[in-house]
Amino acid sequence: MASMLLSRQLARCLQQNSRLLVFGHRYISQAAAKIDVDFDYDGPLMKTEVPGPRSRELLKQLNGIQNVEAVHFFCNYEESRGNYLVDVDGNRMLDLYSQISSIPIGYSHPSLIKLLQQPQNLSTFINRPALGILPPENFAERLKESLLSVAPKGLSQVITMSCGSCSNENAFKAIFIWYRNKERGHNVTKEELESCVINQPPGCPDYAMLSFMGSFHGRTLGCLATTHSKAIHKLDIPSLDWPIAPFPRLKYPLEDFVKENQQEEARCLEEVEDLIVKYRKKKKSVAGIVVEPIQSEGGDNHASDDFFRKLRDIARKHGCAFLVDEVQTGGGCTGKFWAHEHWGLDDPADVLTFSKKMMTGGFFHKEEFRPNAPYRIFNTWLGDPAKNLMLAEVIKVIKREDLLNNATHAGKALLTGLLDLQARYPHLISRVRGRGTFCSFDTPNDATRNKLITIARNKGVVLGGCGDRSIRFRPTLIFKDHHAHLFLNIFSDILANFK
Amino acid sequence: MASMLLSRQLARCLQQNSRLLVFGHRYISQAAAKIDVDFDYDGPLMKTEVPGPRSRELLKQLNGIQNVEAVHFFCNYEESRGNYLVDVDGNRMLDLYSQISSIPIGYSHPSLIKLLQQPQNLSTFINRPALGILPPENFAERLKESLLSVAPKGLSQVITMSCGSCSNENAFKAIFIWYRNKERGHNVTKEELESCVINQPPGCPDYAMLSFMGSFHGRTLGCLATTHSKAIHKLDIPSLDWPIAPFPRLKYPLEDFVKENQQEEARCLEEVEDLIVKYRKKKKSVAGIVVEPIQSEGGDNHASDDFFRKLRDIARKHGCAFLVDEVQTGGGCTGKFWAHEHWGLDDPADVLTFSKKMMTGGFFHKEEFRPNAPYRIFNTWLGDPAKNLMLAEVIKVIKREDLLNNATHAGKALLTGLLDLQARYPHLISRVRGRGTFCSFDTPNDATRNKLITIARNKGVVLGGCGDRSIRFRPTLIFKDHHAHLFLNIFSDILANFK
Repeated sequence: MASMLLSRQLARCLQQNSRLLVFGHRYISQAAAKIDVDFDYDGPLMKTEVPGPRSRELLKQLNGIQNVEAVHFFCNYEESRGNYLVDVDGNRMLDLYSQISSIPIGYSHPSLIKLLQQPQNLSTFINRPALGILPPENFAERLKESLLSVAPKGLSQVITMSCGSCSNENAFKAIFIWYRNKERGHNVTKEELESCVINQPPGCPDYAMLSFMGSFHGRTLGCLATTHSKAIHKLDIPSLDWPIAPFPRLKYPLEDFVKENQQEEARCLEEVEDLIVKYRKKKKSVAGIVVEPIQSEGGDNHASDDFFRKLRDIARKHGCAFLVDEVQTGGGCTGKFWAHEHWGLDDPADVLTFSKKMMTGGFFHKEEFRPNAPYRIFNTWLGDPAKNLMLAEVIKVIKREDLLNNATHAGKALLTGLLDLQARYPHLISRVRGRGTFCSFDTPNDATRNKLITIARNKGVVLGGCGDRSIRFRPTLIFKDHHAHLFLNIFSDILANFK
Repeated sequence: MASMLLSRQLARCLQQNSRLLVFGHRYISQAAAKIDVDFDYDGPLMKTEVPGPRSRELLKQLNGIQNVEAVHFFCNYEESRGNYLVDVDGNRMLDLYSQISSIPIGYSHPSLIKLLQQPQNLSTFINRPALGILPPENFAERLKESLLSVAPKGLSQVITMSCGSCSNENAFKAIFIWYRNKERGHNVTKEELESCVINQPPGCPDYAMLSFMGSFHGRTLGCLATTHSKAIHKLDIPSLDWPIAPFPRLKYPLEDFVKENQQEEARCLEEVEDLIVKYRKKKKSVAGIVVEPIQSEGGDNHASDDFFRKLRDIARKHGCAFLVDEVQTGGGCTGKFWAHEHWGLDDPADVLTFSKKMMTGGFFHKEEFRPNAPYRIFNTWLGDPAKNLMLAEVIKVIKREDLLNNATHAGKALLTGLLDLQARYPHLISRVRGRGTFCSFDTPNDATRNKLITIARNKGVVLGGCGDRSIRFRPTLIFKDHHAHLFLNIFSDILANFK
């Protein structure tokens, strides 16, 4: 447990170092004046309240076409750079949410602009192939220089998809196919072939994925049956009777609740095993377990590395596939390319899904999960070579600029500052937690959380919420210490004046 | 029925005109010598068998990463132009399948190249936003100049998605939400909110979509429950008990089987009503009916305009939503922008889904299907402004070059030729059918069909199969009469020599 999150001891030590730079409770970073990302701005610049008059005008216009209640404001992406999002009213904000965690190396990165300007890349953007039947010449090569160059240990196979939901849906399918082949062998009966076309067993077996309360795995029907973060995502949509285990609800600070948290994790793991047995008894086999390394949409819920190692063991013991959903945690923000690499698993995950910062959806898997026939895992596009091209460049930038270590470093600066703010404003901030820049804290309630987000936005900082009262940090990978200090300065003032 | 497909009389008349140009059973088009698409090639050029040595080498390489059994060959998209697909061995083929019907205006269209070269468009390609929360300034404007400029009658609302499956999944969800609001009103109970999070009713009601045998609506779990075209798509994947009605199996030539076909359609419609009643009795309400205007993957199965008008009436009568899946038929290939516009409905469809040639997925819907709260129909990307930008240009080209009329015209040339081939080779070709260039025919069996496709490919023509024995034509919208004649010349020779 101690290794899971930044320990209190380390936090204190960092705070002491940090305090050297704190004057009158302002986090003045030595690096703050230096713009080390050459295409970045040097700070927020606010001209109107947000949404401003132009955004409000555009909201009205878009409202004629679709529901706009989730729209925060309209953006000027041409002017957005690095960690700064510029809106249509000319407001420039430090973006710590980065399009729901989906911008890897900041806005308008020079390397990506260059890529677009190279004439030899034109064709990739305008001739989108059906990758499963007519791939371009460089398809395998591009997968090798992008996705496979960061493949998690043991997962040699990869299939691309267009979004996160499709990635999980198809990972589930690969798992069901694998499980059925294990159970039956490869001799498919006529009865199976005929019954599957009309949605009936034995062709469509009564298999399930086990998921956790608080999890979010997407919004299509299969994914949604494993999503249990917020009612609004699921209300009125038919679902499947699949087992749902409790996810640990850890108490913070972790060091003060070691025993309680261990007991809590043991309780959840026991429930996982009970559910597998219970569902098997009612003839519904649990083919796989799906889990996020950090439950994101559900409230940034962490568990210890030990919890995940034991969960992986349970999956193996019961013959279930172990699927790690890294749609939000993947891509480097936790300080490792994949968050599950922190766990130190002996036996790797069986399947890993990705999207968002990876620019393309898809999943890695072990060889034994490879579909045994064509057209089983398939669709028209199967991803997009234009996204693979950009991803290859993004990965080059991540390696060249050592952005994983940067995430660790900048994350420590952010977390240290948050722990300090928690100490000063315990009535507003609690349960500060994080790994790399993937940080968050709780507020007393939904109303306070939303008010803080709105005030921060008007002070030039874009934040995101998650769960019922948390604020989550999802900056880009080029978020540096000085951005952390800049945010902490602004937020410290907000908290001091909060009524 | 007579108006549904090209009538035999019209076909005969066209054949007579066409025969003026037939010398020794070769279809020499007057337009054949003229290259009216200035970036098109003037014909196929074959250097090796397909797949050639380079493709086979690349197949081995890709086989280390994923199952490649569906891969036909590898392509050189840089050299592909207009209706011609060039492979990595330098073979140039007339492409009548266009990436499973997903290339609207041919390869490397000059208008799209120009679009990519304009510096003001750079940002759109590299800064992909979360459209549901932070749309770009021109989002509504771009939707108006692209999707809304071709919106089907009565459908004023549009939501974009990343692919066809996500489009149908989310259309189903919008339908379930609409149905539940109709049933319950807008006062959601605490019990609903709590039960939906754990996949249980009443929060997750036991609603169903009614679909047809032979249909294809995608491969994610919800879509797959409405897909019944081929066993390989569905085998081993758990499904839902949703009603499946028979789809008419028409006899050809239509003029000789008017009464039989009317009876067949009446039988299917009766079964639809019976299923709605039967499922309602077992407490599973049919919230919507989903149907393709022409069942594509399932074998290019047509039904009359009258069938669809009556189906629409049944949906209204029973309070079910009427969802038309135009993922493959949409975009102009049938001679109207949307295939269902041929039906002459009094009351429009409620929801229409699209993808493929539209470059972005998504769905149009009536205002009453608009979600009544934010985040109900939502995901991170909600489509891609880069695709919207390209689609706007594609639609401009379609209008400027009158490509809907072109599809009608070129489709007639193709269908007429196919009818002639059918008359000459009835043992190889039967059930010739089509609307616009969306044509197809049956072969005696799967083996013959696949052999014909392989021979055609080696003669420089890319064809696609569908159903268990059909060949489908899915050319681009810039496929002209002379391309039809070119194909007919080549295919006529193939049939003459077929053993």
